[in-house]
Amino acid sequence: MDSFVSALHTDKYQITMMYAHYKNGTHQNRRAFDLYFRKLPFGNGYVVFAGLERVVRYLENLRFREEDLLYLQQENAFEPEFLDLLRSFRFTGTLYAMPEGTLAFPGEPLIRIEGNILELQLIETALLNFVGYQSLIATKAARVRHVAGNDTLLEFGTRRAQEMDAAIWGTRAAYLAGFDATSNTLAGQRFGIPSRGTHAHAWVQDFASELEAFRAYAAAFPDATTLLVDTYDTLKSGLPHAIKVGLELKRQGHTLAGIRLDSGDLAYLSKQARMMLDKAGLTDTKITASSDLDEFTILNLKAQGAKIDAWGVGTKLITAFDQPALGAVYKMVARFEDEEWVPTIKISSNPAKITTPGRKSVYRIIDRKSGKARGDLITAVEEKIDEGKPLQLFDPEHPYRRKKVKNFQAIPLLQPIFQEGRIVYALPSLREIREYHQKQLALFWEEYLRILNPEVYPVSLSHQLWDTKQRLLARIYDYIKAEE
Amino acid sequence: MDSFVSALHTDKYQITMMYAHYKNGTHQNRRAFDLYFRKLPFGNGYVVFAGLERVVRYLENLRFREEDLLYLQQENAFEPEFLDLLRSFRFTGTLYAMPEGTLAFPGEPLIRIEGNILELQLIETALLNFVGYQSLIATKAARVRHVAGNDTLLEFGTRRAQEMDAAIWGTRAAYLAGFDATSNTLAGQRFGIPSRGTHAHAWVQDFASELEAFRAYAAAFPDATTLLVDTYDTLKSGLPHAIKVGLELKRQGHTLAGIRLDSGDLAYLSKQARMMLDKAGLTDTKITASSDLDEFTILNLKAQGAKIDAWGVGTKLITAFDQPALGAVYKMVARFEDEEWVPTIKISSNPAKITTPGRKSVYRIIDRKSGKARGDLITAVEEKIDEGKPLQLFDPEHPYRRKKVKNFQAIPLLQPIFQEGRIVYALPSLREIREYHQKQLALFWEEYLRILNPEVYPVSLSHQLWDTKQRLLARIYDYIKAEE
Repeated sequence: MDSFVSALHTDKYQITMMYAHYKNGTHQNRRAFDLYFRKLPFGNGYVVFAGLERVVRYLENLRFREEDLLYLQQENAFEPEFLDLLRSFRFTGTLYAMPEGTLAFPGEPLIRIEGNILELQLIETALLNFVGYQSLIATKAARVRHVAGNDTLLEFGTRRAQEMDAAIWGTRAAYLAGFDATSNTLAGQRFGIPSRGTHAHAWVQDFASELEAFRAYAAAFPDATTLLVDTYDTLKSGLPHAIKVGLELKRQGHTLAGIRLDSGDLAYLSKQARMMLDKAGLTDTKITASSDLDEFTILNLKAQGAKIDAWGVGTKLITAFDQPALGAVYKMVARFEDEEWVPTIKISSNPAKITTPGRKSVYRIIDRKSGKARGDLITAVEEKIDEGKPLQLFDPEHPYRRKKVKNFQAIPLLQPIFQEGRIVYALPSLREIREYHQKQLALFWEEYLRILNPEVYPVSLSHQLWDTKQRLLARIYDYIKAEE
Repeated sequence: MDSFVSALHTDKYQITMMYAHYKNGTHQNRRAFDLYFRKLPFGNGYVVFAGLERVVRYLENLRFREEDLLYLQQENAFEPEFLDLLRSFRFTGTLYAMPEGTLAFPGEPLIRIEGNILELQLIETALLNFVGYQSLIATKAARVRHVAGNDTLLEFGTRRAQEMDAAIWGTRAAYLAGFDATSNTLAGQRFGIPSRGTHAHAWVQDFASELEAFRAYAAAFPDATTLLVDTYDTLKSGLPHAIKVGLELKRQGHTLAGIRLDSGDLAYLSKQARMMLDKAGLTDTKITASSDLDEFTILNLKAQGAKIDAWGVGTKLITAFDQPALGAVYKMVARFEDEEWVPTIKISSNPAKITTPGRKSVYRIIDRKSGKARGDLITAVEEKIDEGKPLQLFDPEHPYRRKKVKNFQAIPLLQPIFQEGRIVYALPSLREIREYHQKQLALFWEEYLRILNPEVYPVSLSHQLWDTKQRLLARIYDYIKAEE
């Protein structure tokens, strides 16, 4: 599949701002932006950062085609010189990002990017669109994985996804955060994700009897058949027929792989089904359940002792049903003026929306004794952390909450991805990202990971950043006052 | 942009069922499926059907490429003859659908499709994915349009959409259902939707002062500038500066197109802003608002007398935030056996999930006097409606609720789109669909259209369909009993 993304996958105001900068002669200005989120979704304790590979491919291939220039020309009557600028457009920026699968927290730059204002405006919309969606779905998937333990998790959402891209990239995000397989064939082809499937009610409806339908399916896949048993009546018809076919397969040296429950009381039905299968000697036949599942229904079903080996999760995962947008933002944090980076701030009547100025690094502070994370620390890029000295951490929203950390390791989270337009990062395989994500989880105490009312993980600002923020805030309030 | 959609944009079980049918020698069986939804989203009274053009292009171009066949071969060890079947695959089915923009109700086939079981399984996932999303967003957009009256509505959601396709197709759906323009440049290029944009906070941050930033933007677009006034302080800084620039433009013979409010108390700020603009003589300068808007916030702001001319609606629309999936389904309704169509049913312990058997037509019954819809009637395809005789309508969920209709017109809603793989439908332009949708709305009394607690619009089943359903249900219950 082509990884080219149209340069017009952006908001019109990016293009008009680009033009206005060109007209104003400021389009070569170097600026720095942070991409981050302000609020955790689903009441979760963290976000799983995802979408970087999509961003990298987009930036690598970002071009205006002649048809794009023609369209912009017709719509806006831009000067030809500006269109020439777009015609020769290449991404030339420098980009740092967390590796995909990293656990991230509000206010932390997931991506820090430096470049000319022309390119930084153009890419904002696509970056938010890509990172917002994949991070949202990866986070939702991590919640489901958290309650599912070692059970098999199947992504079944394609038909309910918000169009085709969502199905593909959502599947990737789900796999990255611990799902085992998907029903999505295209994601299977594109990313090498294991694909799985059973059969639909239509298969059963298409035969004179359920038994005949089951036999025909088992004949096609004697070692990979999972029979859907709820077309007529799960316990009275579906299971007896599945068991009959399972025993027939057994006599031929095969194993009925599984049955699938898709409606009704999954706790009760799965326990009955397990009993009936075991009694028939079909102890290796697994039970898959599907039916509007999410982390809460799975948790409840497990608490009721449901005998379910594999969970097919569809709508609720692929749309992030209970909060279908992460609400990531992309804000200017510094301007390069007279050969140095000058921090800049954006204020708001809502304090949570005031930006933290300056180009930043993010460190995960790991206790060397427990191997667990004590908190994250955001610093200015030029700050160095001396692991030999105690580190003071404090909560920027509640500055009186402080703690001192000794015997720690400070792991920098932002990795260089592009240097002046040249990619300097070896994109890991999806399998490696999956493994890295599991290692990330292992750094955190369970209190931060639980799905309901997790502890708030502490994210500190360095004193330097804090001081800069206060200084710029004061300056702006003075400016507003002067205008009155 | 290429309208090719991979044949692998489907669920794996579709492919395995196709293979099992091939192995069983039943893959040429002719079947009929209905695509419909069971439950109205958002508490709305109707759904706006959308997505047909996407479906048509998909079916026209549906092919397996060699790389797809290779992937399937590697994953599944299918017989080469089956892969040959896929290699020569073309859509050969017959498809009826409502025109896009039609108001539709639970249980009504939005699409009826007949073909061989091989193709009917393959396309299920994509059809649900396309129609489900666009219909969901069109419905949400119609709700927003309903409360906005004649105000300008701008689709601003791309950055928060669930990946790129959602942004594009969601924008199309929003425009179809009454939005006026979009920020999405790609959707503008692809569908000819008017594109609109203002500027971002980053534009203001990039200048030494807000006034300088506004002047520079106005210089680039002297007749199309909308200034974002909340970067520092809306009333103390943003508006005075915007007015200054507006007056400067005026002296040069231009007009400041607008200002945009993006935070704070939009009711209060818009009233103050209108007063300040008017007092300065900038009566033609429009006020645009954006900030997490949906139909409820817009309704409330209007009730408070907010002076807002244009509404930018983002996240809540493009993700259908309060219900991000329509939950459309695709069910087998008839089998072609011994040269005739035999209705088939799918039962469920949940009565709402029992299908209505048989190939169906849907009629909208219009009162010739008022010109308004009295109800819809679903019939078997072979039934004829005699407009000269009174028509008995009854509610299939409450069969005792009946009414007799005289002096009516019965408009068939399902139009032929494909006949045996050949397209027989002239796809209307998006503009035509928009107009058709407005005419559809005009057929309905306001009671069915309001956004909160709408009247339930009556959808009747013909006696023939009702009797068939009861007969097949009884047969199945007998079958289950016999199995006990």
